[in-house]
Amino acid sequence: MDHQKRRAGRPAKPVLGRAIIAQQALGLVVADGLDQLTMTQLAKKLGVAVSALYNHVENKADVVLLIQDELVSQVSVEGMLKLIAHQTTLQDALTDWARSYRAVFAEYPSLIPLIAVTPVSDAPQTLRMYNVVAQAVISAGIPDEHVMRVIIAFESFLFGSAMDVNAPPTIFDTADSSMESAWLQRVVSASMTQQQGDFEDASHPKDPAEMHNSYAEVPFRFGLEALIQQTLALVES
Amino acid sequence: MDHQKRRAGRPAKPVLGRAIIAQQALGLVVADGLDQLTMTQLAKKLGVAVSALYNHVENKADVVLLIQDELVSQVSVEGMLKLIAHQTTLQDALTDWARSYRAVFAEYPSLIPLIAVTPVSDAPQTLRMYNVVAQAVISAGIPDEHVMRVIIAFESFLFGSAMDVNAPPTIFDTADSSMESAWLQRVVSASMTQQQGDFEDASHPKDPAEMHNSYAEVPFRFGLEALIQQTLALVES
Repeated sequence: MDHQKRRAGRPAKPVLGRAIIAQQALGLVVADGLDQLTMTQLAKKLGVAVSALYNHVENKADVVLLIQDELVSQVSVEGMLKLIAHQTTLQDALTDWARSYRAVFAEYPSLIPLIAVTPVSDAPQTLRMYNVVAQAVISAGIPDEHVMRVIIAFESFLFGSAMDVNAPPTIFDTADSSMESAWLQRVVSASMTQQQGDFEDASHPKDPAEMHNSYAEVPFRFGLEALIQQTLALVES
Repeated sequence: MDHQKRRAGRPAKPVLGRAIIAQQALGLVVADGLDQLTMTQLAKKLGVAVSALYNHVENKADVVLLIQDELVSQVSVEGMLKLIAHQTTLQDALTDWARSYRAVFAEYPSLIPLIAVTPVSDAPQTLRMYNVVAQAVISAGIPDEHVMRVIIAFESFLFGSAMDVNAPPTIFDTADSSMESAWLQRVVSASMTQQQGDFEDASHPKDPAEMHNSYAEVPFRFGLEALIQQTLALVES
C-alpha cells in the first residue's frame, strides 16, 4: 500500500486560498473563541506572513464571512434538489434540510449568535443554499411572499435546537424536592418515562452527530413537525 | 418635593448580595463579553475586595448562574399565572410567555448559547419560571409526559428568534442579480411587498424592545403559531 508513502523533502504546502483560510479560522475559533481570532494569529496558524493573508481576505469581518460560508456549505440541500426535480415531497425535503442544518450548527454553538446576524450577500455557498431552498419551496407550491417567513422560522428553531443538542441531559434536574419545583419535577419525570417508548417507534434514523443529548430529539421532532404542518398549510392548491 | 433630598455624608452603599452581583456581572458581560468576566474584574466593578465577593459566590460558574437567573426573572409568567387561575386560554398564555421570553433574550444574544446549556437547579427564579409554566400547561390539559417537549421546542424557537431580532433587515439582500441568487431575490422582494399588509392588520401590539428588526416579526408569528397549534393538538379532551 502506498497510502503513507511520502516523497522526499518537505511535503507540498497547500496553496493559500480562501478555502484553506476558512478551515484554519474555524479551527482557531472553535479552540479559542471568536474574541481570540486575530489576523496575526490566523497568519501564524497558516504559516504565512500577515501581508500574504491580506492578499486573500480584507479583515476579520471577511474571515467571519468565510467561516459562515464554510459551515453552510456543509448543510445538505440534497432533499431540496430532489424536490425541485419532483423526486420527493416538501415534507421530506424540509426534514432533510432541517436535520442536516441542526447537525452542522450543533458542532459550533458558540458561533450561532454571530452567524444569525451575518449578511449573506458576500458568502457564495450561503447564497447558493438559500437560493436552492427558495426554488424548491416555490416549486412545491408555496406562494413567493410566504417563502422567507418559512425559511426564517425554520432557522430560528434550528439555531435554538442546535444549541439544545449541547445541553446536558440533566439540565432540568432539580436539586431537591421543594414545593417550588414540584410541577417541574413531575413533568421531567414523566417525559423520561415516555422517552423510551418514543425511541422504540422511531421511524427516522438517528444521526450520531445530533445525539450529544438524546433528550433533545423528542422536542426537536415536536417543533419540526409543527413547522412542517404550518408550512404545508401554505401550499396553494 | 423630597424625592431628591439626600442625607448629609456618604450616600448609603447598597449591601453586597447576590442580586447586586448579578446585575453588575450582567453589565460587565454585555460590555466586554463573557470571556473577559473574572472574579477580580467583578469585585473591582462592585467596589469590594475579591474576598468579599467570594463570601457570596463560589466561582465564575456560579456568577453565570446568577446572570441566567437575573435574565429569566425578567420573563413574564403573568399569562401562565392567569391560565392556572382559569382566567385566560392556553393560546394566550403561551403567546404572552413567548413574546416576553424573546424580548428579554433579544437584549443579550451573545449569552444565549451559554444559557441554553446551563442547568437550572441552582437558579431559583429559573426554577420558578419552569415550575409555573409546567403547572399552567398541565392545568390546560396537556398530559404530563408531553409538557417538557412543548417547553423545550418553544425555547429552541425563542432562542433563535431572539437572535433573529438582532439581524440587520438587509441580511438577505443580494449584492448583484446573478443567476445564483435569482430565486432568493424573488422571495425576498415578494416578502417585502407583503410585509406592509401584514403589519396593517396586526392584531398584536408590537413591543418596541422586539423591533430592532421589524422583518423578524412575520417569521416569528409564523413559527409561534405553528408551535401553538401543535401544542393545542396535545390537549386531552
